[in-house]
Parts: sequence; structure tokens; C-alpha cells
Amino acid sequence: MAGMIMKGAEVIAAMKEKILQDVTELKTQGIEPVINIIRVGARPDDLAYERGARKRMESVGIRMDVTELPEDISQKDFADAFRSVNDNPDVHGIMLFRPLPPTLDEEEIAGMINPIKDVDCMSPVNIAKVFGGDSDGHAPCTAEAVMEMLDFYGIELSGKRVTVVGRSMVVGKPLAMMLLKKNATVTMCHTRTKDLPGACRQAEVIAAAAGRAGMITADMVSEGAVVADVGINVNEAGKLCGDVDFSGVSKKAAAISPVPGGVGGVTTSVLAAHVVRAAQILAK
Amino acid sequence: MAGMIMKGAEVIAAMKEKILQDVTELKTQGIEPVINIIRVGARPDDLAYERGARKRMESVGIRMDVTELPEDISQKDFADAFRSVNDNPDVHGIMLFRPLPPTLDEEEIAGMINPIKDVDCMSPVNIAKVFGGDSDGHAPCTAEAVMEMLDFYGIELSGKRVTVVGRSMVVGKPLAMMLLKKNATVTMCHTRTKDLPGACRQAEVIAAAAGRAGMITADMVSEGAVVADVGINVNEAGKLCGDVDFSGVSKKAAAISPVPGGVGGVTTSVLAAHVVRAAQILAK
Repeated sequence: MAGMIMKGAEVIAAMKEKILQDVTELKTQGIEPVINIIRVGARPDDLAYERGARKRMESVGIRMDVTELPEDISQKDFADAFRSVNDNPDVHGIMLFRPLPPTLDEEEIAGMINPIKDVDCMSPVNIAKVFGGDSDGHAPCTAEAVMEMLDFYGIELSGKRVTVVGRSMVVGKPLAMMLLKKNATVTMCHTRTKDLPGACRQAEVIAAAAGRAGMITADMVSEGAVVADVGINVNEAGKLCGDVDFSGVSKKAAAISPVPGGVGGVTTSVLAAHVVRAAQILAK
Repeated sequence: MAGMIMKGAEVIAAMKEKILQDVTELKTQGIEPVINIIRVGARPDDLAYERGARKRMESVGIRMDVTELPEDISQKDFADAFRSVNDNPDVHGIMLFRPLPPTLDEEEIAGMINPIKDVDCMSPVNIAKVFGGDSDGHAPCTAEAVMEMLDFYGIELSGKRVTVVGRSMVVGKPLAMMLLKKNATVTMCHTRTKDLPGACRQAEVIAAAAGRAGMITADMVSEGAVVADVGINVNEAGKLCGDVDFSGVSKKAAAISPVPGGVGGVTTSVLAAHVVRAAQILAK
């Protein structure tokens, strides 16, 4: 059986429609939604993300500004620069690239950011909300992108056995909490899990977010399972690939998301949706 | 096979020794550790907990004060009263009984409490730390009491399949995060889990925190599993009992905690340990 391919593009198109409507309404009220990306230094990964984000924001009418700071900035100057963006009433969403250089203290910034503007969930207020199942705050964009994809493709989660592979604070853990909120029975696996194949085989839905190319192989997936691949890796051949061995697993899965072309691109759509929501809340 | 009984009293005795040492050292520095319990109204449950807490605090030389507030207090007066306790340099730990009357806003208080004094984890700062696996903060006392018990009885968790039944913010969820931090593979179950017996049978360790008398029966437990019972219920006969059918399960489990006499009493020892740690941090 060859399963359904869960393509990011379709999710992005559906989200775009809704975001465009909201942006139009905001602009009618004289509000141009603005995201400010704060970047310390110029890591290639950050620059690549920035380009993708800019394209996405432009496509929905959100203005994107970048605050670029030198890598050797002092904590005081960094905090001052951050505060001025945070206090700027024209900025609705703020995203800070992490990790920061080791000389800078992320915790001070996380404690300072206005939770409403914190569109990628660095504030303890938003982190605590995700943990508590309170959808009032902003969840980490990648974790939410998985939920958007499963929702778009009509994947039922309530009462389902879902295995999450990976326990990071940007994907695995918040995703587990969001799945739990949808009444899934969630098993959290990681590098120290003894029988990962067994934990995956018993799952009706698998979310792979471990960051290891092709680690989820066909023998680990039950016939008819749904597989969301959140990995972004470069394989030995230098090709972009996910955590899932797509060619093998796609023959057994009822639905599977590819890499590239899957969850990754949805992430910036979620970011855009968060900026719009922040602008709506701040307008009240 | 009749398994080991994990008794709270032994854990409490071991913790007491350590706490007494720390309190003695604090007193040498002229510091008397103080917990202030803030109670709105006089619910019988709260009063019962208060009596238990007072006994425990007295046994280790911690002073316990109670701030009693009328049930019809305004949010402003409540916040003012809370702030004065929070700002009092002689108070090291604060515990607020919850839920509050519906006229009061818990979120304002949670955002205001000094995270160091927040000994039962209501601040988003501490909640986010538990979620993130950062043991710097104060975890919810009951969840931590389970970890203390498993640790005291030498229950290995790394790589083990652990099933947590219940997903509350005071036990199930934080406990799952603390187990994950110990490298367990954690399955989170709840009322909407379809095959709870199956999820329990595959577990090497079960933590029952669902709040339903005797719901974990012998047929749901594998031979040789470890069972921590976090339930505190009153059964049909009016007797205090846990979530686990002790008489049946104890015949199969390698180790089991009873109710009463199990995890429950350890909770106030954890609270005392948090007050001591808060006093140590505030003394720096």
C-alpha cells in the first residue's frame, strides 16, 4: 500500500488564506503587522531561515525587520537593544535566533520579553502555557507546525497511541503536550530508549524529531501508521533528508510527510499566524 | 511473589536527617527558615494539609506561619496581602492553597511570586523549568515525592518503560518530565486512553495519579513491575485508598507503595526541603 503524502505546500496554502484575511482586517484598522527578528552574528543557518521567513511574511503582507547585532556585543548592550524592540509599539512579534553566543545570557531575555510578542515561545510564561495545555500563548513554531499538518490532513488523534521520538524543548516536548491536549496517549522516546523499534511499532501515529537521518526504518513502522517527519538532516550524499527512511516507510504508512516539502515550510506559516495573533491582541 | 513495600516513613526519615543538618547550618548563620502558608477561607482539605505540614515543619525546625484571608477578599486586597508576604525578607517559602475562590485571579499571583520562594511550583518560571528538565527550580511537591520514593528504594529508571496514569499539572505532567529527565521512556495515559490495561502491562514502572479508587487492578500489571500509587481517594466503605488495588497488585509487583503510608506523607518532606533550599539561596 502506498500512503497519502502529507505535503507542506497544501497546509501552507490553507493557512495563507486565513492569515491574509486577518492581515487585511488589521490593515483596515490601520495596523501593519510587524515581526522583528533579532540576530546576533551571521550564522549561515540563521540567514537561511531568515530568507525563508522573509518570503513567507511578504507573501501574507507582514513586514519583517531584522535587528542585527555584533557577535561580541556585551550583555548590557544586548539587553538594551532587545528592550527597545520589545517596547516598540510598532513591533508585534519578536523572534530571537538561538543559541546565543556563550557570552550572552538567554535567561535574562526570556524573562524580559513581552509574552504576547514572544512568537516562538522563549518566555517562561508561554512555555508554562504549552506545558499546561493552555492554547492562549504562543507554542514553539515547529511543534505547532506538526499539529497544523496533522489537523489539515484530518488525522484523528483522540485516544490514539502516538510515539514522539526526540525530547527537545523546540519540538519533542511541546509536541507531546499538544498531542496530549488532543487526548492522544503519548509515548516519549529518545536516545536512551531501549526498544525504539517496539515503541514505534505500537504507535498509530509517529512524530520523528530526533535529528538523525533515516533513523526510522520500515521495520519500525506498523502497516497503516501515520508518520510525521520533523527531521532536517543532510545525508551522506549531501542531500537534505528527514529522520524517516521515506522510500521504505512510505510503502507501509497510511500517511507520511516528506523532507523536504513537509513540516519544515509550515513552520514559518505558524510564525506568521503568531505575529497576526499578537497584533490582534495588542490592538485590543 | 509478594513484592517490596515502599513505605513513605522510611523516605521521610532519610529526608529528615538531611533537612535537619541543613536547618542546623542555616541557624548557625542566624537564619530561621520560614514557610508562610496563604489560605483563603477554611476548606477542610486545606486545614488537614496544614496540620500535616505544621507537624512536619516543626519536626525539622522550620517555622510555619499561616496567612489566613477571608473568602470574600477583593483581588486588590488579596494581591496586597500576597505581596507583603512575598516581599518579607524573613519568609523563605510561600505556599498558596488552590484552587482559589472563583472571584480571585490566580494568574496575577503566579506571575508575582518570587520564583525562589515559590516552593510548590505555581510560578511560570518554575513550571517552565520542570518542563525543560532544569532542576534549579521548585517542582510540584507531590510529583517530586514520587521521584524521592523511587530514588530511595533504588528503582532504576534509565531506559525503562514507565507509564504515568493521569495528566494533571500537580502530578502527572511534571512527574512525566522528571522521569524523562532520568532517561525513562514515558507513556502518558489518561481518561481518554483507549487501552489503559495494555499501556500499563507493557510498563516496567507504573505511576498511578488518576484519582480513581482501585482503578489499577492486578490484571493490568506485569509480573515484577514497580508501582507507585499517588492516588488519595475514599472508597465505598469510607476508607482511605489509592488508585491501585493494593491487595491484588502487591502479589505481582516487585515493589509497591501503599495508601495510606506511601507517597502522600513524603510530599510535606519535599515541601520542607524546598523551604530549606530557598533559605539557602536567599542567604547568598
